[in-house]
Amino acid sequence: MLNFNDFFKSLDDQLEVMWQAILAESRFTQAILHGDIDKTLYAIYMIETFHYTAHNARNQALVGVRENPSPVYTKFCFEHAAEEVGHEKMALHDLRSIDVITHDTVIPKPLPETETLIAYLYWVAANGNPLRRLGYSYWAENCYHYINPLIEKLRSTLKLEDSQLTFFIAHSSIDEEHFDEIKKIIQRTCNTQDDLDDITNVMETTLKLTSKMLEAVFDEYAKLQAGTSTRYSFLKNTSAAA
Amino acid sequence: MLNFNDFFKSLDDQLEVMWQAILAESRFTQAILHGDIDKTLYAIYMIETFHYTAHNARNQALVGVRENPSPVYTKFCFEHAAEEVGHEKMALHDLRSIDVITHDTVIPKPLPETETLIAYLYWVAANGNPLRRLGYSYWAENCYHYINPLIEKLRSTLKLEDSQLTFFIAHSSIDEEHFDEIKKIIQRTCNTQDDLDDITNVMETTLKLTSKMLEAVFDEYAKLQAGTSTRYSFLKNTSAAA
Amino acid sequence: MLNFNDFFKSLDDQLEVMWQAILAESRFTQAILHGDIDKTLYAIYMIETFHYTAHNARNQALVGVRENPSPVYTKFCFEHAAEEVGHEKMALHDLRSIDVITHDTVIPKPLPETETLIAYLYWVAANGNPLRRLGYSYWAENCYHYINPLIEKLRSTLKLEDSQLTFFIAHSSIDEEHFDEIKKIIQRTCNTQDDLDDITNVMETTLKLTSKMLEAVFDEYAKLQAGTSTRYSFLKNTSAAA
Amino acid sequence: MLNFNDFFKSLDDQLEVMWQAILAESRFTQAILHGDIDKTLYAIYMIETFHYTAHNARNQALVGVRENPSPVYTKFCFEHAAEEVGHEKMALHDLRSIDVITHDTVIPKPLPETETLIAYLYWVAANGNPLRRLGYSYWAENCYHYINPLIEKLRSTLKLEDSQLTFFIAHSSIDEEHFDEIKKIIQRTCNTQDDLDDITNVMETTLKLTSKMLEAVFDEYAKLQAGTSTRYSFLKNTSAAA
Repeated sequence: MLNFNDFFKSLDDQLEVMWQAILAESRFTQAILHGDIDKTLYAIYMIETFHYTAHNARNQALVGVRENPSPVYTKFCFEHAAEEVGHEKMALHDLRSIDVITHDTVIPKPLPETETLIAYLYWVAANGNPLRRLGYSYWAENCYHYINPLIEKLRSTLKLEDSQLTFFIAHSSIDEEHFDEIKKIIQRTCNTQDDLDDITNVMETTLKLTSKMLEAVFDEYAKLQAGTSTRYSFLKNTSAAA
Repeated sequence: MLNFNDFFKSLDDQLEVMWQAILAESRFTQAILHGDIDKTLYAIYMIETFHYTAHNARNQALVGVRENPSPVYTKFCFEHAAEEVGHEKMALHDLRSIDVITHDTVIPKPLPETETLIAYLYWVAANGNPLRRLGYSYWAENCYHYINPLIEKLRSTLKLEDSQLTFFIAHSSIDEEHFDEIKKIIQRTCNTQDDLDDITNVMETTLKLTSKMLEAVFDEYAKLQAGTSTRYSFLKNTSAAA
Repeated sequence: MLNFNDFFKSLDDQLEVMWQAILAESRFTQAILHGDIDKTLYAIYMIETFHYTAHNARNQALVGVRENPSPVYTKFCFEHAAEEVGHEKMALHDLRSIDVITHDTVIPKPLPETETLIAYLYWVAANGNPLRRLGYSYWAENCYHYINPLIEKLRSTLKLEDSQLTFFIAHSSIDEEHFDEIKKIIQRTCNTQDDLDDITNVMETTLKLTSKMLEAVFDEYAKLQAGTSTRYSFLKNTSAAA
Repeated sequence: MLNFNDFFKSLDDQLEVMWQAILAESRFTQAILHGDIDKTLYAIYMIETFHYTAHNARNQALVGVRENPSPVYTKFCFEHAAEEVGHEKMALHDLRSIDVITHDTVIPKPLPETETLIAYLYWVAANGNPLRRLGYSYWAENCYHYINPLIEKLRSTLKLEDSQLTFFIAHSSIDEEHFDEIKKIIQRTCNTQDDLDDITNVMETTLKLTSKMLEAVFDEYAKLQAGTSTRYSFLKNTSAAA
């Protein structure tokens, strides 16, 4: 008999440890918290967000495309996917609203770390325990507790309006509901300790891959600032470009 | 500029021709219309229906998993898939309700003609113009006009209650709404004559493959009646088994 | 303990029945045997051959991409696929050599019946018993006994040189060796009666789908002759075009 | 006009930088070079090697399953895949030969870092420029220059016979030939600077993911030594188990 309260507590504890490490050690989060950034960091980050978000509905639905014993879970996968469709467009909207890109800007390919995260999510969606992708949803729908301070700091440092933060604002409200659904679907579909272990594994791995993506974003920002890379010099109206 | 009224008219005209041929020439439909059947024909048919229906939500969602220029269409694919999840269970329920199978019955694999239909639907979902699977939905959500007389005849010949026809009753009401959605999504997403031609092609091909499946069902029924095949002799409480 | 001699005998007997029916009843084969054709029938047939052949190496390799208990079989799949790569180009070469197409000709999409065959082969490659695709190879590598008389008649009716029949000549010699390999790999990898039944099923289904493709080719030929379709009127220097 | 000598030189230079960093900084390689290990490190490493190697032939072939303009490249993919089939079995053989596992040992699932590498390789095989997987082959077939000193040190520290190192010995000889083929196929198939950039990107990313896998192996080794994990305590006849 699985004890889901204990399970959620163990996931939450593990997330607390991992997020505190990210907030304390990551150059990306430290730069934001110290206000030591300009629009280009936000822009590079939102471009990567655009990339992986564009795949999230698709790899979520892919779980349901597999032969699956539970119609409840299959339906959840398709409904959840339907709700996520097109969200990546908000990321580009926000960048246009601060004038760093235009409708004609050719968005560069994802960074290797972003592509690795995307690759892993498709792999998890298509292989192994179909339930394990819930480990990604568990933290992704439940991260605003940790990232809201970062967003607030971004907002004040870069003087962003709500209309320039639509991606984050939309998700922080949508995702609260989603998080309850994630916990409910875990309770309805998981039957074995292996199910729980697989979810834990994917939660940890996807959060680690995401934190590596954040570091890669910061590396690109630092290179842009130092003038050692031109990959993002297409960004307009930024202090780096000025 | 595409004229959708003309397009829908041409699809409807083509369906009229194809269905009239099926109703007039198919031994499957003729046997039903002449009341010259027993429960085993219904059972064999519902087993094949169980098989392809179990794949419909999945191959519908697969269209949306592909990289797709239109978020409207992607969302439609996932929502439509979500609504179809688990419908195959109604087919088995109906067979249990007439006592030809039990919860323990091992359902035989699909017939080759059914597997061919399933294979083609996945192929269409994964390859070529993503819009073309709408050709399948166009007739599948719009077939009750043609098959209701068959169902009524089945009902009276086999003395079936509503509770023994849940698959058909559920679909004939759900699908009316769906058909309007199909026409709307065609209008919102198709931009070229090629889109329309691809939809027409898939409509015709999937209806042809379905009619071949019906013939294969009748062949198996005839073999069971003649005692030349034991494939379906597991069916219980039928005149053939009696 | 499986008796492979009996199994191969049963496959051969079944092929004999099916091929005799095709040779006797198919309008495609009858037209060829009566010499009642022109280059356009050959051309339409070779275009469809081009289409499905272009997929054969790919769906053969796909079997090996799946998780597979037998390295011997996986290796066979990749080696066999490697040998088939690019053979479709011979089909187009032969059509250019008789001046019905040029290098610039836009080849029309496959006919629905051809696409159905292709779809089924990918389905079989990706789903169910991985060994079952051997049922396709069994007849495809072993069909020259039946089709050589057709090719000879084609050759004399259309006055074709060897250099205009490279697809058939290459395959009739390559495939003899291949057929021995197919029988060997069946003996090395099949362990259960289910394996043999699955191979039989796919052999029958793919030959049936191929015969439907031949009928569809003849239908298109007849429509071209009758002037009721322009789909193949791009074919040059043919009696129909003259 | 692409200059392949310059390109290969740039790849080699980049590999030199990356490998020197791995050799100098990685705890995994440092532990081996200092002889500060026992059989369990070798065992954990070979288990992960077993896992990703079991997928290499499959994701190599997957590149060829995609629609691909170059038959030369498609054929290369299938032939190269055929040669790699079953190599993972050597890794397990070597572990049995040093008595740390038996035929009955249940091999644990791959570590998250190994699964990430596997996931990325399938992603690269199935998406984006089909040529880019050659970036993985470029370093994987060309790594013995760097890892032979590690293998020699392993051999002397753990007193391994050739018959206990079959995986490494087989690959160091096979792969020399393979490396020449990789360079030839790059020259025959790459036409644009984008092709070269994509290959460079995948070379760097897969080597980085591999080095993270090595670190994860060392972490597990350290946890086993410290008694803080039982994941690998099934390994027999090791100093940790003794």
